[in-house]
Amino acid sequence: MALLNPPPPPPFPSPPSPASSRPPPLPAVVLPLSQPPRTRHSVPRASATVETIEKTTDSALVEKSVNTIRFLAIDAVEKANSGHPGLPMGCAPMGHILYDEVMRYNPKNPFWFNRDRFVLSAGHGCMLQYALLHLAGYDSVQEEDLKGFRQWGSKTPGHPENFETLGVEVTTGPLGQGICNAVGLALAERHLAARYNKPDSEIVDHYTYCILGDGCQMEGISNEACSLAGHWGLGKLIAFYDDNHISIDGDTEIAFTENVDTRFEGLGWHVIWVKNGNTGYDEIRAAIKEAKAVKDKPTLIKVTTTIGYGSPNKANSYSVHGSALGAKEVDATRKNLGWPFEPFHVPEDVKKHWSRHASEGAALEAEWNAKFAEYEKKYPEEAAEFKSIITGELPSGWEKALPTYTPESPADATRNLSQQNLNALAKVLPGLLGGSADLASSNMTLLKMFGDFQKNTP
Amino acid sequence: MALLNPPPPPPFPSPPSPASSRPPPLPAVVLPLSQPPRTRHSVPRASATVETIEKTTDSALVEKSVNTIRFLAIDAVEKANSGHPGLPMGCAPMGHILYDEVMRYNPKNPFWFNRDRFVLSAGHGCMLQYALLHLAGYDSVQEEDLKGFRQWGSKTPGHPENFETLGVEVTTGPLGQGICNAVGLALAERHLAARYNKPDSEIVDHYTYCILGDGCQMEGISNEACSLAGHWGLGKLIAFYDDNHISIDGDTEIAFTENVDTRFEGLGWHVIWVKNGNTGYDEIRAAIKEAKAVKDKPTLIKVTTTIGYGSPNKANSYSVHGSALGAKEVDATRKNLGWPFEPFHVPEDVKKHWSRHASEGAALEAEWNAKFAEYEKKYPEEAAEFKSIITGELPSGWEKALPTYTPESPADATRNLSQQNLNALAKVLPGLLGGSADLASSNMTLLKMFGDFQKNTP
Repeated sequence: MALLNPPPPPPFPSPPSPASSRPPPLPAVVLPLSQPPRTRHSVPRASATVETIEKTTDSALVEKSVNTIRFLAIDAVEKANSGHPGLPMGCAPMGHILYDEVMRYNPKNPFWFNRDRFVLSAGHGCMLQYALLHLAGYDSVQEEDLKGFRQWGSKTPGHPENFETLGVEVTTGPLGQGICNAVGLALAERHLAARYNKPDSEIVDHYTYCILGDGCQMEGISNEACSLAGHWGLGKLIAFYDDNHISIDGDTEIAFTENVDTRFEGLGWHVIWVKNGNTGYDEIRAAIKEAKAVKDKPTLIKVTTTIGYGSPNKANSYSVHGSALGAKEVDATRKNLGWPFEPFHVPEDVKKHWSRHASEGAALEAEWNAKFAEYEKKYPEEAAEFKSIITGELPSGWEKALPTYTPESPADATRNLSQQNLNALAKVLPGLLGGSADLASSNMTLLKMFGDFQKNTP
Repeated sequence: MALLNPPPPPPFPSPPSPASSRPPPLPAVVLPLSQPPRTRHSVPRASATVETIEKTTDSALVEKSVNTIRFLAIDAVEKANSGHPGLPMGCAPMGHILYDEVMRYNPKNPFWFNRDRFVLSAGHGCMLQYALLHLAGYDSVQEEDLKGFRQWGSKTPGHPENFETLGVEVTTGPLGQGICNAVGLALAERHLAARYNKPDSEIVDHYTYCILGDGCQMEGISNEACSLAGHWGLGKLIAFYDDNHISIDGDTEIAFTENVDTRFEGLGWHVIWVKNGNTGYDEIRAAIKEAKAVKDKPTLIKVTTTIGYGSPNKANSYSVHGSALGAKEVDATRKNLGWPFEPFHVPEDVKKHWSRHASEGAALEAEWNAKFAEYEKKYPEEAAEFKSIITGELPSGWEKALPTYTPESPADATRNLSQQNLNALAKVLPGLLGGSADLASSNMTLLKMFGDFQKNTP
């Protein structure tokens, strides 16, 4: 069954890893099917049926976990003397709730197909994601990786890179780009679900979560993709807008005063405002619950936060956006948040609390694997096609479908020849999808045997 | 006085003009002040005080003028067998009202400083603009130019080019870009007005109009610029959104179903919907009046039109978007709109009606010139600075303000040296403005002696 949770196509070559006593990372694989990732199947299936969103947790422990995330970010940026502590400090509560209470994933197999996806569109705040991956138990981000933040060859580059750090779905950093990728991930889920789910077996069923900031909202590309997401009605896309009013040059008042909520309503999204993103845990939980209940629209949860929350002298200012706090302010923040621990320390109770994700995740995966095995028995043809699509495997002899040309073939425009080839390939490659930005009739990219992906024909 | 209405900086070299009996175009000038454009000063000043927006016109004549615009576009595209007839046919009513009733310009001096600006962001519909420039009396677009539409060396290229056709303010075509330029033009007006107008003399006072289409609205860049326009409250920017529901691949339903009105409200614009852009002349006039009354916000007038209006078999379909109608459909359209004239014919009464713009425009310019002469007497220093800014003239000896460096100068980052130079130059170049997309503190482009351009500090 592990064949269905394959690693992605071979990554770009990585710089050498720093000296480390742990096992080497997953090798770059050429054929996705030849190297199944490590999975754990020992956990009984029953334990996987958890309704994560309803989970209650001890509020003192949640607060402690959130502060752990904050200080891992603070300490890593401080050690590197470079990076962005402000976003992780402000977004730690939503980050905690997502990774600890809401998202379904298996930290020991980042490639499990039906995992929820998370994209940090505000990639500069990547210490948030590294801290979360670390707590969640991903092998890719261990304590020494946090200590190697922004160092050459480390697994924790200054912006998230999916070919560098297992658990990172999408390389982000260029503002606005991550939310566009999130739209793409949600689109893929919707299409695969429509194509392969059966009334008695939903094998494709996961959410795409994203955190984006003011910088992402300022970029036109995010508006383009979010307009399409609204058009398509991607109900399982839930984006958190970190509304902290601070960008590199200061308060967003200087350049960005549009009403983002209204704009997203115009784009066809469901919009929720969490007014207290700093300590309003229940507000955040309720927003996610509401977002999940809205099935026909993507949701934007505007979460008003304080950038650099907890820093007595730098919170809510651009100085905490892209620089280390400095030793004095780190001390002041430790005092302010009541954090007596040394740098990079994860308190035992926090560690214990998060440790359940390994077994829970393995159980989720095992449950899904069993479901798929059943699906495969009932729908062998669909199962085979589905497998070929998600593994990127090409059917044997696909190339025989290509038209042939000789020097005697009549001259034709490249775009027409392209159309002949695309349409010939589409018949034999079930995973081939096309797209054109309102120019299909001109660039001849129409796949004539298919309709368009639309809200009602996904 | 003509010195204040200078031609723009030297254009790119033009391809040779087709054989023509008219005088050669304005030569490329090196120093803007050395080559004043042709102006007419013979019209008495009093006649210039026209409240153009209130002007009433015989409705049959308006209809005839609008159909003249439609058929000039139809005939030119037909002769070229290439181009976009649909937009001009649908937008002819708003085009007519703008150029005949609303805009203040002097067709015989396209460089008159205080003219209203017009930008056709949906540049593919340029036959609309060429027809309007032709009727308005611009020397740059004569009958033979219309007949040379889209031909090599003609003054009527397939998308508007400001260095090719006098009267075209901005080269457009890449969708979304024109509206961004329009924001820039409105921004310049607002800044110059704030800087040089006096309570007793408003020497800077003009509007920027723009027509943009669905393609422009789909592009993220237009959202970026319109967000800024809303932030800045550019009340003299009035954009017409040609809401015709058709793009190249068909109905906008296939990809673009966002609520543009709501989005623009979110961006801080005043939004008006003209439901009948095909024949609702008074609706269009009322919208413009309302837009002008809103001083603190830019206005988007959504004008619902029928693309290819008048074509019995192709209107409201993508087939009229980017191809000639074809001889048969041109005939059918002539019958349908009751147009008995031969191709490129401008009826005498229409010609006569439009002919007044030459004298009215000259009067408007003369009035402004007189106003500026008075201003110059009262405020010689401001007048001199204003002249230097709008002509692009550099003050003599400006280069002496530059810092000097020697091989012994300490090493420094390029961006720091850039900052030193920018700040030295800003002191002696009154027209130097800077900008940075939320990176001024990083790329060191701040001009330290100035504040930011803001709504309340323009």
